[in-house]
Amino acid sequence: MRNFKLLIEYEGTNYWGWQIQNLKSKIKNQKLKIRTVQGEIEKALKKIFGKSIRLIGSGRTDAGVHALGQVANFKVNTKIKPTNIKDALNRYLPPDIRIVNIEEVEENFHARFSARAKIYRYFILNRRVPSAFYRNYSWWVKEKLDFQVMGKAARIFLGTHDFKSFASTDPKRKSDNFVRTIKKVLLKKHKHFIIFEIEADGFLHNMVRNMVGTLVEVGKGKLTPFDVENILKSHDRRFAPPPAPSQGLFLVKVKY
Amino acid sequence: MRNFKLLIEYEGTNYWGWQIQNLKSKIKNQKLKIRTVQGEIEKALKKIFGKSIRLIGSGRTDAGVHALGQVANFKVNTKIKPTNIKDALNRYLPPDIRIVNIEEVEENFHARFSARAKIYRYFILNRRVPSAFYRNYSWWVKEKLDFQVMGKAARIFLGTHDFKSFASTDPKRKSDNFVRTIKKVLLKKHKHFIIFEIEADGFLHNMVRNMVGTLVEVGKGKLTPFDVENILKSHDRRFAPPPAPSQGLFLVKVKY
Repeated sequence: MRNFKLLIEYEGTNYWGWQIQNLKSKIKNQKLKIRTVQGEIEKALKKIFGKSIRLIGSGRTDAGVHALGQVANFKVNTKIKPTNIKDALNRYLPPDIRIVNIEEVEENFHARFSARAKIYRYFILNRRVPSAFYRNYSWWVKEKLDFQVMGKAARIFLGTHDFKSFASTDPKRKSDNFVRTIKKVLLKKHKHFIIFEIEADGFLHNMVRNMVGTLVEVGKGKLTPFDVENILKSHDRRFAPPPAPSQGLFLVKVKY
Repeated sequence: MRNFKLLIEYEGTNYWGWQIQNLKSKIKNQKLKIRTVQGEIEKALKKIFGKSIRLIGSGRTDAGVHALGQVANFKVNTKIKPTNIKDALNRYLPPDIRIVNIEEVEENFHARFSARAKIYRYFILNRRVPSAFYRNYSWWVKEKLDFQVMGKAARIFLGTHDFKSFASTDPKRKSDNFVRTIKKVLLKKHKHFIIFEIEADGFLHNMVRNMVGTLVEVGKGKLTPFDVENILKSHDRRFAPPPAPSQGLFLVKVKY
């Protein structure tokens, strides 16, 4: 069996996130068409190799979240060259999912377990008028945000902390361990955008969106950096503001 | 009558261009729903002012072409403040058309006749794999393009010339004068993009797309800058390659 590593780019707007969902309990007699990125790629793999192949992603992304550098792997017995698999996948996949690169990797490479760190980016559009172009790729915040104080608050996340206050409860992911290490945070301005970039060894469910939701409250002057410190220390989700919407979030890179 | 100047941003993907089309002769008994940017804004103006108002654009853009800074004006007898008209328009307009700014201007301001120059930008995505994100905002060219020689060819357009070789025949726009002055051309690289920016006192139909179609042939090595000079001098459309597709083109700015 050969092991292939995929570098994937997708616009999440039209998908129910990365992972194939088991909605049996909810849908009952209804036939719902749930499109997921993983599902689309597995469908394309089946067309190429003539059988079901399990695709392992580096992790899930929620509905509406985008990826510039999602990574996944799959194993198959084949003689086809990686570059030809890539071209075939891109032929079968819808145009909002693209395989940017494919390479053969060692047998024990696992897109999820081998990942050492991930980088996410979140785009806030801070101007008076919403954008005709970025409506699916940013969170439009009309009120003038204080960039300096947001940067100060963002740096509080740096280092190793218990991030339970910034983790949405996820029935499918029962985690007792909320400790993560934030290696880098960066808040930058580009024209009308405020861009939040974060690198960590791992992320809890909705963690980036919860952080951005909090930072925007700071930018509006409704919370202070000191409040953010206290929310972080509280280990209680109820103290943090609601998450930022999904469409501003991009999975940028997975490090191995 | 007060005269209002609008600064408009739109994603052209879902429109038949800027201008309301008179398709009577073609459609006969068919009822076609032709959506144009001008049509959508006039519809919104009618809702606000309770009557038909003619919107004058700086010029047309074709189906699929985008605008970051289209300008238009309209006259109406009203006491409503410009900023309130802007907010009302943005409420009624579809999300892919946004009024970025509105200001009252002198009575004789005319979006088309008062325009002194326009800036267009064209995005070429030059990488092996198409993009999940930029498919509606760029022309994907797979073959490696020679950026240096394209820049050399682009500079040939500078100055005052008869651009008949780069004007598509347009039955609605019977022009005998194909002379235009190119004030600036700029070819830059940004990651996988090659961006062509051009400023002129006016543009012929499809002129930018025809120029870009030619520059890409130069980038592929199928034409030389010397060939481009000869095409320009020929004043004959048949010598120039076909136009670049519309989705890579942005109207960036109209100068007054």
